[in-house]
Formats: sequence, structure tokens, C-alpha cells
Amino acid sequence: MTAPRLRTRRLDLRDGRVDLSHGAGGRATAQLIDEIFRPAFDNPMLDRGNDQAEFSVPAGRMVMSTDAYVISPLFFPGGDIGSLAVHGTINDLAMAGAQPLHLAASYIIEEGFPLGDLQRIAASMGRAAREAGIAIVTGDTKVVERGKGDGLYIATSGIGLIEGERSVCPASIRAGDAVLISGDIGRHGMAILATREGLAFESPIQSDCAPLVAPVQALLKAGLEIHCLRDLTRGGLATALIELAESSRTAIGVDEVAIPVTDLVRGACEILGLEPSYVANEGRFVCILPESQAEAALAILAAHATGSPPARIGSVRPGPAGMAILRSVIGAERILDRLSGEQLPRIC
Amino acid sequence: MTAPRLRTRRLDLRDGRVDLSHGAGGRATAQLIDEIFRPAFDNPMLDRGNDQAEFSVPAGRMVMSTDAYVISPLFFPGGDIGSLAVHGTINDLAMAGAQPLHLAASYIIEEGFPLGDLQRIAASMGRAAREAGIAIVTGDTKVVERGKGDGLYIATSGIGLIEGERSVCPASIRAGDAVLISGDIGRHGMAILATREGLAFESPIQSDCAPLVAPVQALLKAGLEIHCLRDLTRGGLATALIELAESSRTAIGVDEVAIPVTDLVRGACEILGLEPSYVANEGRFVCILPESQAEAALAILAAHATGSPPARIGSVRPGPAGMAILRSVIGAERILDRLSGEQLPRIC
Repeated sequence: MTAPRLRTRRLDLRDGRVDLSHGAGGRATAQLIDEIFRPAFDNPMLDRGNDQAEFSVPAGRMVMSTDAYVISPLFFPGGDIGSLAVHGTINDLAMAGAQPLHLAASYIIEEGFPLGDLQRIAASMGRAAREAGIAIVTGDTKVVERGKGDGLYIATSGIGLIEGERSVCPASIRAGDAVLISGDIGRHGMAILATREGLAFESPIQSDCAPLVAPVQALLKAGLEIHCLRDLTRGGLATALIELAESSRTAIGVDEVAIPVTDLVRGACEILGLEPSYVANEGRFVCILPESQAEAALAILAAHATGSPPARIGSVRPGPAGMAILRSVIGAERILDRLSGEQLPRIC
Repeated sequence: MTAPRLRTRRLDLRDGRVDLSHGAGGRATAQLIDEIFRPAFDNPMLDRGNDQAEFSVPAGRMVMSTDAYVISPLFFPGGDIGSLAVHGTINDLAMAGAQPLHLAASYIIEEGFPLGDLQRIAASMGRAAREAGIAIVTGDTKVVERGKGDGLYIATSGIGLIEGERSVCPASIRAGDAVLISGDIGRHGMAILATREGLAFESPIQSDCAPLVAPVQALLKAGLEIHCLRDLTRGGLATALIELAESSRTAIGVDEVAIPVTDLVRGACEILGLEPSYVANEGRFVCILPESQAEAALAILAAHATGSPPARIGSVRPGPAGMAILRSVIGAERILDRLSGEQLPRIC
């Protein structure tokens, strides 16, 4: 008795496209996993071919986070949906002071999506994961009909471990704390917008998309008393400060002149009538800690900077509770408010 | 200095629709979370409003799983995308012998999706999670433009803990083991197909969508030496048996007459030219364990059955390695093969 198994031709990564059979859980799905995802992610847990990954954990505090990525376009200066889906989720873990451990990834692919693009994105995910020292241990692939998606959506979830007893969260913020920023803001949003709208600048704006695990671990390992960390994604710096002020029941005051913005981003924002402090980032965060440790933290952040140097942009005040306050270039103070509409859809 | 905050009207759950601002990370996103997801999921970790959930874990073995759910239609007899997204992922954890711990959920919503439907689905997720004794601890909401999605896609990820030393996985399968099935097959796939195609049967076929944590935990707590468990989702029983035979390098032989199929499902399959053993299920699993413990396991499965009684459908043979073999009603044996095309798109 011999198997009636067909000899399967390898995927055509140059001209081939995803079809509905790749999401049916049968032979085509197995081939997609074997020829695209396994080689890109290359880890023994995934190779086991189970519907779940198994691993050992020490007793302690764990964090879990998830994000769906629907960015358009899928490829942009400084990254793609794959690197974004890895960095975005591990950064959420890092912001709790955790060392990321493992990632899981689900793909919703539109019928007709080029197999070559899928391979490029999977390779980018694998590279981003290896650079961050983590593994993509389990996944799922679904295919939807043409016109029911937009190329590719990815949802990633991650878990991480917190060492020590420290609580890095808004509740730890205290009046008098210094507010630091890890680099210049607005690059990711403006890179996407410029690509999408076909805006030509002298040099293209590169997204700041980057993993934030190394600077965060360096801050923690230096023994600094980090009160709170927050990455500046959708809604940008302004929305992050509002959320932190509200959660901590403090006031957070920042100086507009101290906030690093490159001339390129500032110019693009002016053309488009946007405020840099509301524009999305994918590799920048604020760090809130005792004033006395600000200089030490800035030195560590400077050593890990991927753009303009970090800066001290403000401080925490006792009140008015729940307010983020911006002192403008001319010295006037105004309360920052959440955007009420949609500034830029599908930025991440 | 007073806040320039607008008094926000509550969401119109009767006639309102999701728009792009609900995915922008600003005020509308916060309102969607506060008025739809938090009340439905009701747990303190989500209430903390961070981008990640924090919790304590004991030292030990953990499993992680993820699935994207793109089912169409969103509501079907016996469930909806919400209950499916919870059951599907916790079942993947249960199949490793784990007790599910926490879930994370990401939503990709198409602009124009009714807020009332979103609330109904969130309520269904919350209910399914509570019934399974787990919490949905973190999430993310994205909105895509009209025509770039299909109402709602959900990706869930879960983690669970394995007690004891047992390895419930294909590598533990041994020749001579009994192969049990927890109930009748084919209901989920036929329920979806009947709904989608507007087929009218005398009584509607109900999906078997259900959590499998309780029967699995009962099998383990009874001290049975469970070698392997596998839920029968996309590709159905046949694909699961093929995957298990391949992973374990054994042969798995099953008797067609022993496989429970209701008359309703068998009739619908005949009309549509489908084989029940390839049709998807969302609340059925196979259990492989030593022959001597088959009767005890069947008694436990019977106590947790949600449809037809469980059955012993076959046994594991030493070879030919990697083959799943079906003995037909007339006694002829044939090797089962993976489906090469798409039987039924967007079944889960």
C-alpha cells in the first residue's frame, strides 16, 4: 500500500499568488507554512508543527499584549508591516519593564496577494524577532476573498517576564518626576503619509520603527528607579501624555521647545497642517523617573538612540490632576486634548 | 484652568456604526473600549487601561496559541464569531493538556460595521470566557476603510499552564493505542454552509462550537495516560488523523461505521457531495490513549458530551508510518489524503 500523495511543486515565489486553498488548512496551507514561515522564523517550537507552542517559565510576573497591524502601504521607508508587527508588540511588553519572551502571529491574507511579498514580510518578521532575541513560536494563516481585505493584516501577541519587584506603570508616577523622551518624534507617521500621498521631499523621511527592548533593559539594569514608560504610537506624544496624566492623576507639563523634531518632519507637518506631537511613532518612548536620575537616564538613552538625541522635555506636577500641559515656543501654556477625529487612518 | 474636554454622547448601540475614528487611538477609540469591551469582559486587568496586562505565573510549563477568525457569516446557529474566537483558541491550549489562563484579542473592524453587532459579539466573547473560567486581559482595535474588510475579523491568542509532567502531543502516540472521538462530526461546517447558502432543512443544523477545557481536564484529573489530543477544526477529522499519523510516524486506522454523524449532517453532506470526515468542527476532538484505558475515557467523555455520545473509532498501528487509513462501510481500506483545494472558505 503506497500513499497517493501528489508530488507538490514548490511555491512560485516570483509570480505566484495566495489563493483560498492556502487558508483551508489542507495541503496548500501546510506548504505555505513549510516554504515561507518556517524558514523565516527558524525555531524548534514552530518546527514541531503543533497548534500551540510549549515552553517553560519561571515563577514571577508576566505581561501579555496584542496588536493588530493594518498599516497601508505594507512597505515604507524604514520598515514594513512585518518588522512593525514584531517591534510594535515587543515594545508594548518592554514598556511594562518586561523582557519579551515569545510572540504568536496570525495572518489575514487577501486572495491574490503576491507570494514573494509574503516571503519578504515573513523574512522581515524573522529578522526583527532575532534582533530582539525572541522567537515567533506559533501562528495561524487565514485567506479571505479578493475585496474582503487589503493585501495583508497581521495580529501579533507577545508575552514577557518582569524581573524584580518594580512596577513600571502610570500609578508609579510622582509629582516632581522628570519626563524624558528617547528621540525625535513624528517620523513614522510622516514616512507613511509621504509614501501614501506620493509626497517628494529632498530625502525620504524614514520611519523610526525600532525595537525598544535594549534601551529599556539598560535603564532597568542600571538600577534606575523607572516610574513609567510609554511608547508613542497612534496619537503620538500628546495622546500618550494625556493618557499618563489621566491614569496617574497628576499633571504632566512639557516644553514645546525641548521636544526633538527633525527639520524634515517639521517641514512636512507644516505643509500638511499637522502637529508633530500628535503624529505616530514606532520607536520612541517617554521615560518618567525621579528628577535626580534624569541625567543618568539620558546618558543611557543617548547610547541607544536611533535618531536625534534623547531629551528632558518636562516634569510631573501635582495638578491639575489628569491634565497634560504644553508650554509653547512663546511661553503660553495650553492643555492638550485627545484628537476627536481621525488624523491618519491605518498608520499601524 | 479647566479642561476643554467635550461632553461625549454615549455610543448609539441601536443605529450607530463604526467609523475610522474608532480605530485612531483617540477619544472615539477610548469610548468604544469603555462602552463596549470593558463592560462585556469585566476584569480588573483590562480596567487598568494599559497597553499590556500583568499577572503572576507559577514556574512550570506554559503553552501559547493564536488563531485569526474570519468566519462568514458572523452569526450562525450555535454561535457567532465571538464565541468561536474564544472557544477556538482555548481549545488549542486544552489540546496540549493545558488549563487556559488568559486571552488577548485584536479586532479588525470594517468601517460601517453596526455598533450593536459589535456589542453583541463582545458580550458573546465575555460569556464564553467566563464559562471557561478565563479572562480576556488585553486587546487592540483597528478600523479599516469600507471594502477593505468584511465586517469583523478577530485574532485571539491564549496562554495556558500544563500541570504535571505529561507530554500530550503526537510524539507520545504508541502503536496499540485506542483512538476515541468526543462526539458526532461535521456540524460546524454544515451549519455555516447551510446558513451561507440559505439551505433549508427541517431543523437547522447547530454548530458544535464549544469549549473543550472541562472534558480534557476531567480526563487528566482521572489520572488517565492521555497520549495525544487534537481538536477537529479546518479539514475535519480526516486532516487531523493525517497530521497525527505524520507527526507520530505511526499509522492510524479508523472505522467509518464507528464515526458518529447525525442523520441531518449526513443528509446535508450527501446533497452537497461532501465527506463528513473532512468537514470542520469547533467542539470535537480525538483522544489517543492506551487501549486498556479506553472504556474509562469514554465514560468521562460521555459525561461531558454536547451532542452524540463519544465513540471508539479505531486504533494506532505500527505502520505504514505517517498514514491515516479509513476502513469503509463495506470493509475496504483506503489511505486518507489531505484536501488539495478549498472545500469551504472562511469556515472559522
